[in-house]
Amino acid sequence: MGLGVARTLVRAGFETLGCDLRPEALRSLERDGGVSCTAPSAMGSRCQVVIVLVVNEAQTEEALFGPAGAVSTLHPGSVVISSATVSPNYAGDLGRRLGENGILMLDAPVSGGAARAAEGKLTMMTSGPAEAYAKCEDVLGSVAATVYHLGDAHGMGSRVKMLNQLLAGVHIAAMAEALALGIREGVDLKVLYEVITHSAGNSWMFENRAPHVLEGDYTSLSAVDIFVKDLGLVLDAARATKFPLPLSAAAHQMFMMASSAGHGREDDSAVIKIFPGIELPSCTKA
Amino acid sequence: MGLGVARTLVRAGFETLGCDLRPEALRSLERDGGVSCTAPSAMGSRCQVVIVLVVNEAQTEEALFGPAGAVSTLHPGSVVISSATVSPNYAGDLGRRLGENGILMLDAPVSGGAARAAEGKLTMMTSGPAEAYAKCEDVLGSVAATVYHLGDAHGMGSRVKMLNQLLAGVHIAAMAEALALGIREGVDLKVLYEVITHSAGNSWMFENRAPHVLEGDYTSLSAVDIFVKDLGLVLDAARATKFPLPLSAAAHQMFMMASSAGHGREDDSAVIKIFPGIELPSCTKA
Repeated sequence: MGLGVARTLVRAGFETLGCDLRPEALRSLERDGGVSCTAPSAMGSRCQVVIVLVVNEAQTEEALFGPAGAVSTLHPGSVVISSATVSPNYAGDLGRRLGENGILMLDAPVSGGAARAAEGKLTMMTSGPAEAYAKCEDVLGSVAATVYHLGDAHGMGSRVKMLNQLLAGVHIAAMAEALALGIREGVDLKVLYEVITHSAGNSWMFENRAPHVLEGDYTSLSAVDIFVKDLGLVLDAARATKFPLPLSAAAHQMFMMASSAGHGREDDSAVIKIFPGIELPSCTKA
Repeated sequence: MGLGVARTLVRAGFETLGCDLRPEALRSLERDGGVSCTAPSAMGSRCQVVIVLVVNEAQTEEALFGPAGAVSTLHPGSVVISSATVSPNYAGDLGRRLGENGILMLDAPVSGGAARAAEGKLTMMTSGPAEAYAKCEDVLGSVAATVYHLGDAHGMGSRVKMLNQLLAGVHIAAMAEALALGIREGVDLKVLYEVITHSAGNSWMFENRAPHVLEGDYTSLSAVDIFVKDLGLVLDAARATKFPLPLSAAAHQMFMMASSAGHGREDDSAVIKIFPGIELPSCTKA
């Protein structure tokens, strides 16, 4: 996803530096006219705006405050756009710690996946001070089709993203449960897909993920382990105020069963593999 | 819903007889040019096609095989369109028993609610023998915008409807859980609605039902108790083959908690009232 955003910025005319654990991503960026760096600290002094588009809190922490993190070299007044899905509390804390280093921050998780990132059409759920927005409006406008402004408090962007992930995770698990029962009951899955996508039982995730099951193709676009993590963040946030979430808890267990059974790196629709006693469609691709 | 279908049939030029427990529905039908009957048995000898649009299996049973049921007077070769949400096994059994009386049947549950019924724009999920379809194609075409043909076996229409209800019920409960956590976390619900309905966390039910919570208006369009019943049918069907449904089971418990707390006849979005420790938006209507 980071590569897609970087290439979008190059196309938009920004001088773009990139850092990635995967050498092929850096080579691809250089071919397009970007500059590759060996560590975030090598970018800091040359950038006014840093987008951190990594998997989780640990990677965000490493990229910013690790031994070779960007914070060690970033100039005061520069902006960090924090776009990993992290807990609202971590986002709030990160804003405070960056502020202590004179660095502005936007809490700005994204939705849309690698394909939308490459097109500059991400959805961003952002919050932070006006001063931070003022310094990176042009960057946000280039990488995102829609930028939601959710107030000046760090954490609110991540809170809204967390609620989106609650729904997305439960809906994927519900898609799996409905298709699994459909198979058990002898229903033609193609007809079922046609009916549900035109009925009140439809969801964005049903429409998007059920075809993976029908085609038997679990090539990872977004992995089972992403929802082990993201529903985990949801449950952690609610547990902090002792708030009950019966569906999120059940869906989280389903993703953990799938991961524990060895499907963690497969597409999140592979959560259907936890259901015993049914035969899933086999892969139709050559 | 039955009244809407009956008035649609009158408008389409069918000689339409109606029977309902509510006298005001019958008066309304008569004003529009229909004929009201005091019991299903009074309709049977005068109708070639009977649509049974009631709440559940017990009412279907009463309308057809009760002491004043339609079966006692229906001519051989007439057609019953069974449109209540019932278990697939009941639908199969009903087809067999009607057949023993020389009566054809379509297993034909509907989706769309009273508003779509009044417009002749229901969605019907149907299965049954070609002979039954042949005798009521014109009726189906008048009351439904979309008629799915799901094979000749009674029960398949109800099976697909059951899977739609599984998803619909889980999605309503997920909508409630996400909004409840949103309130707990201090998120502006109007902004949350705007973001989710444009993101991957969206569902038909979120888009349709979340506004009821935002407006604090739990006037029943479809009641909590409908999902106590429908998710109950889902769980019964799965239990019959010992098949696990973790999300449906959790969602069913949530609707039962809401019903047990006195909200059974409120709109199904009132399932959010089971969440403690939050203040729901109050009603904004005069």
